[in-house]
Amino acid sequence: MRGGGAAMARLAVTARAFSASASAAGGVAMVQGASRGIGLEFVRQLLRRSDEGRVVATCRAPGNAAELQKLKEEHAPGRLAVLPLDVTDESTIEAAAASIQETHGSLDLLINSTGILSIPNVIQPETTLSKVQKSSLLLAYEVNAVGPILVIKHMWPLLKVGGRSETGRGFSLVANMSARVSSIGDNGLGGWHSYRASKTALNQLTKTVSVEFGRKDNIACILLHPGTVDTDLSRPFQRNVPKDKLFTREFSVQKLLSIIDSVKKSDNGKFFAWDGQEIPW
Amino acid sequence: MRGGGAAMARLAVTARAFSASASAAGGVAMVQGASRGIGLEFVRQLLRRSDEGRVVATCRAPGNAAELQKLKEEHAPGRLAVLPLDVTDESTIEAAAASIQETHGSLDLLINSTGILSIPNVIQPETTLSKVQKSSLLLAYEVNAVGPILVIKHMWPLLKVGGRSETGRGFSLVANMSARVSSIGDNGLGGWHSYRASKTALNQLTKTVSVEFGRKDNIACILLHPGTVDTDLSRPFQRNVPKDKLFTREFSVQKLLSIIDSVKKSDNGKFFAWDGQEIPW
Repeated sequence: MRGGGAAMARLAVTARAFSASASAAGGVAMVQGASRGIGLEFVRQLLRRSDEGRVVATCRAPGNAAELQKLKEEHAPGRLAVLPLDVTDESTIEAAAASIQETHGSLDLLINSTGILSIPNVIQPETTLSKVQKSSLLLAYEVNAVGPILVIKHMWPLLKVGGRSETGRGFSLVANMSARVSSIGDNGLGGWHSYRASKTALNQLTKTVSVEFGRKDNIACILLHPGTVDTDLSRPFQRNVPKDKLFTREFSVQKLLSIIDSVKKSDNGKFFAWDGQEIPW
Repeated sequence: MRGGGAAMARLAVTARAFSASASAAGGVAMVQGASRGIGLEFVRQLLRRSDEGRVVATCRAPGNAAELQKLKEEHAPGRLAVLPLDVTDESTIEAAAASIQETHGSLDLLINSTGILSIPNVIQPETTLSKVQKSSLLLAYEVNAVGPILVIKHMWPLLKVGGRSETGRGFSLVANMSARVSSIGDNGLGGWHSYRASKTALNQLTKTVSVEFGRKDNIACILLHPGTVDTDLSRPFQRNVPKDKLFTREFSVQKLLSIIDSVKKSDNGKFFAWDGQEIPW
């Protein structure tokens, strides 16, 4: 199904990967939005599960990402790279793609984990329509929907040549962090207009991209709902969450990685909760 | 179910409406995005169906809206008002709301009909992920999703006191123009990322607003898919549409008005195609 140009590009990249010894067994995973919360935990667990997989963690300011720097020191040289990437600044996405191209030549797994829900004096989940602000709607959209799609756009050439059989999966995978509140069919509570709409748009954009990947490429895209996880993002809103429904990051990411591990090419375009159940649109 | 404050506001508005003789039988309908296409046809048919209903048509530049001005001349004084409103400029939405408050004191029907799909050299429906541009994603979102929701926000006080029994419906209605391509479940073709995602977000925002209205107010919100209609919006993309699937504006709006006429309060939050079939999210 590949054209000649793609096949040649693949050969060229394979040659480069061998020469750089970068395409080790275990593959190359990128975690976008990795300085804290669920993204950081993905990096931690991905590094722990094999001695060979490489992880590229991105965040806005690597110099301030103490946890990521600590993980880097704890692991063998080359296993973890920390790159600057701000989803609202496309030039940083392009620069990260160029850096990964240079070092690894391919990507086997891309996890988009950034998300904005509340920042004091900037954006707050709306409790009523009368509190809906244009600035919040646009900011949430830019970070939660536009950002991840631009990351996929620029990582696409790397994903096209990733997913080789030595990673065990046989295709490249993009996993976008969504949230159950993005489900229109499941929306019985209302509120949180900016966050909901941005994540619903992310669902549609992911589905749209999955259709094209399904037609042309050896790549699948899925959406994940991590549950309500004890992170900085959820902390201001945990009051009404029953204790047994508030997950640790460790538990949630374990569950999400088990989905990522078992996903089939035919799951392309689907939306899974942490327990593997599909979520209605 | 109304609080004392709302009841008092209702009395005050009713008194004002009587004094201005503005709240005539047939009610007050607002069509937002009315200078051409489906919006203009809504105005035309709403004016034609009764001798008493009042229509407020909004568009960016009333002075350039020759068709609306012609309709105004053809009908009795006071039946059609044409107000400036640009969904990307919230101050114009507030000014329109203030003007309607002053003249009519209430709204029985609000039709949000603006939509952006393509403008040469500005935005084009994307045929592939590699053509997705941040500027297009944000512009489509601002016009197709944020705009209608801000209009509802500012018309909310007028809708709360509208929907009286003399309009025949017994509740106020908001009808937002969506499109079948906004359905995630129905997305088998891919492409059109910016337009799809913006209309999907509009679906979620409408559903979110409908939950609050269902709890507090005598207002219902619905989403409508007009079919592929022969308008300026669809013209560049009509090539592959079979002739019997390309509707005239007259036909589509007739069908949509029959849905608007027959909709029940329990349809709040639903998404209907021109033929009355519900569209999956």
